[in-house]
Amino acid sequence: MAHLLDGRRIAVLATDGVERVELEQPRHALEDAGAHTDVVSIDRGEIQARDHDLVDAGTFAVNRLVDDVSVDDYEALLLPGGTVNPDKLRMDPSAVQFVRAFVQSGKPVASICHGPWSFVEADVVRGRRLTAWPSIRTDLRNAGTEVVDEQVVTDGNITTSRSPDDLPAFCERMVEEFAKAPESANAGDRA
Amino acid sequence: MAHLLDGRRIAVLATDGVERVELEQPRHALEDAGAHTDVVSIDRGEIQARDHDLVDAGTFAVNRLVDDVSVDDYEALLLPGGTVNPDKLRMDPSAVQFVRAFVQSGKPVASICHGPWSFVEADVVRGRRLTAWPSIRTDLRNAGTEVVDEQVVTDGNITTSRSPDDLPAFCERMVEEFAKAPESANAGDRA
Repeated sequence: MAHLLDGRRIAVLATDGVERVELEQPRHALEDAGAHTDVVSIDRGEIQARDHDLVDAGTFAVNRLVDDVSVDDYEALLLPGGTVNPDKLRMDPSAVQFVRAFVQSGKPVASICHGPWSFVEADVVRGRRLTAWPSIRTDLRNAGTEVVDEQVVTDGNITTSRSPDDLPAFCERMVEEFAKAPESANAGDRA
Repeated sequence: MAHLLDGRRIAVLATDGVERVELEQPRHALEDAGAHTDVVSIDRGEIQARDHDLVDAGTFAVNRLVDDVSVDDYEALLLPGGTVNPDKLRMDPSAVQFVRAFVQSGKPVASICHGPWSFVEADVVRGRRLTAWPSIRTDLRNAGTEVVDEQVVTDGNITTSRSPDDLPAFCERMVEEFAKAPESANAGDRA
């Protein structure tokens, strides 16, 4: 899938508690396809990653603060999971507004596992068809979402998967969907 | 408050990721008032505690499996927080049914921080007035709850608080509310 995303800039919004493989593998898939990725977060420095929520799994460097970026800076958005990660993001108004603006812009967004909790906080998934980790499905349904149990689901500009087991299908679909987005003028200027 | 809870048996439902102070301090308050407490969980052995969700904070021994107990065995229920803890409990049908049966029984239930997520999964808080950690308030509202921002809230048999900072007020109110529950025949037999 090399070159499918040449010149595209992708935001990876995450913070402490992110599930390591759910950031690492999709980011590699995006960069293998030619994209530039930024880890966008709510504080400077590094974020703490986890394996299975409870095991320390190193850190990722933060490239940009969510307060300093806008949807115009990127052509697509990735929201990894990990339970604590979206739980913290949803309390940050700038992070929630970034997710809301991205979904409303029509640009492609992909999320896996607990990542879709941020959609609930942004209130952007009423009437949309999604999948997610089982623990958050009641919250998604209560937010007006049609929840299905499939390995990867694309509804309009939102692509979702359930868990790390779905990563191969998730990464493939995400690259396909992100490749459909036209390269924007702003992002092109900065590439 | 010694003797207020003499002879009472209290279930503390929790699993891995429980916020240490939110189990430890309320349990001490209950035992100081004369109650017997059981840590009830979804697997045998120990559960892993955390400080501020991300820092290892030792373990607690599991006293009973939720599959092996019923509401009849206890006069009150405590649900501590910690983000990962209720996220795991809500995927366990026995744990969710235990919470649902407890709230529906009219026996007193107290929960703090992220603990009320289990009420959402059990669908027992429509029309109830609660407080909780800020990240889960949208999920509570979407589940039909009236959410308020107060240090401790009692609505019928449910008492809730927001965070570890509220623990002194939470523990005092919890003991008062749990003391109102009559000692049940079954629990008395086992005391």
